[in-house]
Amino acid sequence: MAGYSANKQDHAMRLRRVEGQIRGLQRMVEDDQYCIDILTQVSAATSALKAFSLSLLEEHLAHCVAEAAQKGGPEADAKVKEASDAIARLVRS
Amino acid sequence: MAGYSANKQDHAMRLRRVEGQIRGLQRMVEDDQYCIDILTQVSAATSALKAFSLSLLEEHLAHCVAEAAQKGGPEADAKVKEASDAIARLVRS
Amino acid sequence: MAGYSANKQDHAMRLRRVEGQIRGLQRMVEDDQYCIDILTQVSAATSALKAFSLSLLEEHLAHCVAEAAQKGGPEADAKVKEASDAIARLVRS
Amino acid sequence: MAGYSANKQDHAMRLRRVEGQIRGLQRMVEDDQYCIDILTQVSAATSALKAFSLSLLEEHLAHCVAEAAQKGGPEADAKVKEASDAIARLVRS
Repeated sequence: MAGYSANKQDHAMRLRRVEGQIRGLQRMVEDDQYCIDILTQVSAATSALKAFSLSLLEEHLAHCVAEAAQKGGPEADAKVKEASDAIARLVRS
Repeated sequence: MAGYSANKQDHAMRLRRVEGQIRGLQRMVEDDQYCIDILTQVSAATSALKAFSLSLLEEHLAHCVAEAAQKGGPEADAKVKEASDAIARLVRS
Repeated sequence: MAGYSANKQDHAMRLRRVEGQIRGLQRMVEDDQYCIDILTQVSAATSALKAFSLSLLEEHLAHCVAEAAQKGGPEADAKVKEASDAIARLVRS
Repeated sequence: MAGYSANKQDHAMRLRRVEGQIRGLQRMVEDDQYCIDILTQVSAATSALKAFSLSLLEEHLAHCVAEAAQKGGPEADAKVKEASDAIARLVRS
């Protein structure tokens, strides 16, 4: 069971909303809508994806990383390194 | 006709690919996959959206903004301001 | 004369303020202050740098790019490409 | 003692380098250098600040957050929440 299972419905709903935003973008391109309006919608979708990943990351720290830290040892270090690498990818994406 | 019409097929294809990534994320959450793998996929989708918006923005500068600049006057200033605001939203999203 | 000369004092002042923030960060590290407080200060400095670059970019579009667009030809295309590349670096930094 | 004390010299050196980049930017503005070259240097300074904060954050997770997780209880939850909020500010700055 993944650490985010308690909020699975919430995550699924957020992602469905992002999917709706991406479909909306496809229609906007199809209908030759104005670039700036499309860019505004892209910024909204990007922000929604970031909010999703920040919420997932918080759960990951609270469950997987915290549990590994309680056990300690190299496994704990590996979990912290793995989470830090994911944060770096997120910050740079 | 929007300034990006020449590359409409290309834009539509990029967005369909992002839609596929978002659907993939929904399956990953549904299947309780590991948080870090989901976060990696979110970073990929965010990067794809940014690449889409940068390509759209370049076309907008090359067409709408350049045409307004050729005419000059307050319309030109307004187009530059509008594009700058869109860039700011993009940088901060 | 660069396109941003009219606001040179303003730009110089913004950068002096960022320099002050970076010196503040050095003192915080020197004094072993709490990581989270340091990270908050880094976010403030990063936001200030982004605001500086967005303001510089807007001037660049309004002057250098607009002037090149008025002349037209390959020089205009090159200026748009150059500005778009700078925006891409900014979005990804 | 802060969690990053072991790498204090390393952090101090990174920040001195960023300070040098900001001073370089001030000279570039003073000398009316080309906007695009200034923007490239801003992107470099922003990336250096992000690298600094990611390295500080990794140490914070490895020390402060991991120690709190070992003790457990509300203190552990508070540390995770605090770190998540710092990550969110970083991602959005």
